[in-house]
Amino acid sequence: MITIDPSVVSTGKLHGFMLGAIGPRPIAFASTVDVDGNPNLSPFSFFNVFSANPPILIFSPARRVRDNTTKHTLENAQATKEVVINIVNYDIVQQMSLSSTEYGEGVNEFTKSGLTMVKSEKVAPFRVGESPVQFECKVNDIIPMGSEGGAGNLVMCEVLLMHVNENIVDADGRIDQYKIDQVARMGGNWYTRANRGMFEVPKPLSTIGIGVDELPEDIKNSTVFTGNDLGKLANIEHLPRKEEALDFVNKQDDIKNKIAQANPIEIHKFAKQYLDDNHIDIAWKILAAKL
Amino acid sequence: MITIDPSVVSTGKLHGFMLGAIGPRPIAFASTVDVDGNPNLSPFSFFNVFSANPPILIFSPARRVRDNTTKHTLENAQATKEVVINIVNYDIVQQMSLSSTEYGEGVNEFTKSGLTMVKSEKVAPFRVGESPVQFECKVNDIIPMGSEGGAGNLVMCEVLLMHVNENIVDADGRIDQYKIDQVARMGGNWYTRANRGMFEVPKPLSTIGIGVDELPEDIKNSTVFTGNDLGKLANIEHLPRKEEALDFVNKQDDIKNKIAQANPIEIHKFAKQYLDDNHIDIAWKILAAKL
Repeated sequence: MITIDPSVVSTGKLHGFMLGAIGPRPIAFASTVDVDGNPNLSPFSFFNVFSANPPILIFSPARRVRDNTTKHTLENAQATKEVVINIVNYDIVQQMSLSSTEYGEGVNEFTKSGLTMVKSEKVAPFRVGESPVQFECKVNDIIPMGSEGGAGNLVMCEVLLMHVNENIVDADGRIDQYKIDQVARMGGNWYTRANRGMFEVPKPLSTIGIGVDELPEDIKNSTVFTGNDLGKLANIEHLPRKEEALDFVNKQDDIKNKIAQANPIEIHKFAKQYLDDNHIDIAWKILAAKL
Repeated sequence: MITIDPSVVSTGKLHGFMLGAIGPRPIAFASTVDVDGNPNLSPFSFFNVFSANPPILIFSPARRVRDNTTKHTLENAQATKEVVINIVNYDIVQQMSLSSTEYGEGVNEFTKSGLTMVKSEKVAPFRVGESPVQFECKVNDIIPMGSEGGAGNLVMCEVLLMHVNENIVDADGRIDQYKIDQVARMGGNWYTRANRGMFEVPKPLSTIGIGVDELPEDIKNSTVFTGNDLGKLANIEHLPRKEEALDFVNKQDDIKNKIAQANPIEIHKFAKQYLDDNHIDIAWKILAAKL
């Protein structure tokens, strides 16, 4: 391991390491107005949801590392205590990036990026019409993390109203995770398009998995199974009974023939094919029949 | 748009909407110990970096929506003021998920998930040996967002020491964004594997882009270009001069022949091919030669 001591490395270098390590980071496309009502729009990836009740989103416009100045968004949030946080999908990522240009004060980034200003219902800042989800928020508090360049400022946003484009909602009324098509920030110039890498992991909450420690030794120490495989196998309430497994296996000719003469390694490899397809029940039946 | 008023919908429903909207969320795989030194390990997706100087990471173990109880991680962080935040890559996602099982107090999730306990240098909680990046942190403060089910608790973690696996570092000493292979949390049971959807967007900081508003009308109003295309085109300091563009085009026979008799729509479609490949300079030369 390479060890990095924040008290020794420069802020710029540490910043790079932290942003390369923590991600992908969701993007708050933050819309504010100044005291005269002039709009501002800028993206921030020090952002997330932190509470559902009360509904709190936090983003952090940090003091610039290079000259310790602050961003218009922070100044506006301090002055007016209102912000609209817009979610960024793939269709607007280039325009969002353009809006992060360091335009002078009073320049409207909605105009510069060609995005549509939509009036909010409860706050003065405008919504981004193209954004799939928009949060109208009041700013409860702003907590500075320090006073030097690179210091974050937590803008604590309480959601007053949430707007969801009906085109991204599924038949059950939930936000469709493919259709929302979120992008997120990574290190360097990298972004990721979330729906290109999606996979499901069943929640382990309803049952208490036996745990990897309770797996039979030959499975736990197998050269065939990865950590992910063991994690899947250990997420069952109890080991399948051998009779039950044999009963299942004997009814499936293809499986029965395949495992009849197989050695343990071959059995594990065969079971792994089912694990890879998330047919964990079948993988277990194969393994248990041979335990 | 569908409008959701937090003061009207149930916390559970609002929770689902917010988690479906804000993502992908990076995962803090948080390791703590109780006052007797018993280890605990649990993942949290209300997490991000919020400051580089001082280096502050925040995660939020929320009060459970269903019964307003708190998590062992929160209790341990309150009691000992120390935590190790481990980054989750694809190789350990199943074991991480297993560790989020609601095991009873005193059960060691390192053992249950089959992950390796590695001693830390500056704090008592253990690091996850398989994790590509580990942050040893002291807890500066814990800020409750409320007292009801669904209320977040901001665990403000200051990084004392950061450990990076040398296998994920590139030749320049930076964290390789493919090799770190982060996973992140989305709505429902969905996760995303960041490096499957990666793309680069050049930072617009060094130059002030002209903005979409300054693009020539026929480009801005073209039926061919998407918002992303306009965003790319608008990220230049000034429009290319026509002579310069003609000079370039006349030297490229394939381009010259292609655009000689083309109508504006055909020109835009031809330029778009270069935009799609991020050859923005060539796209501009083609467009400017015909302006």
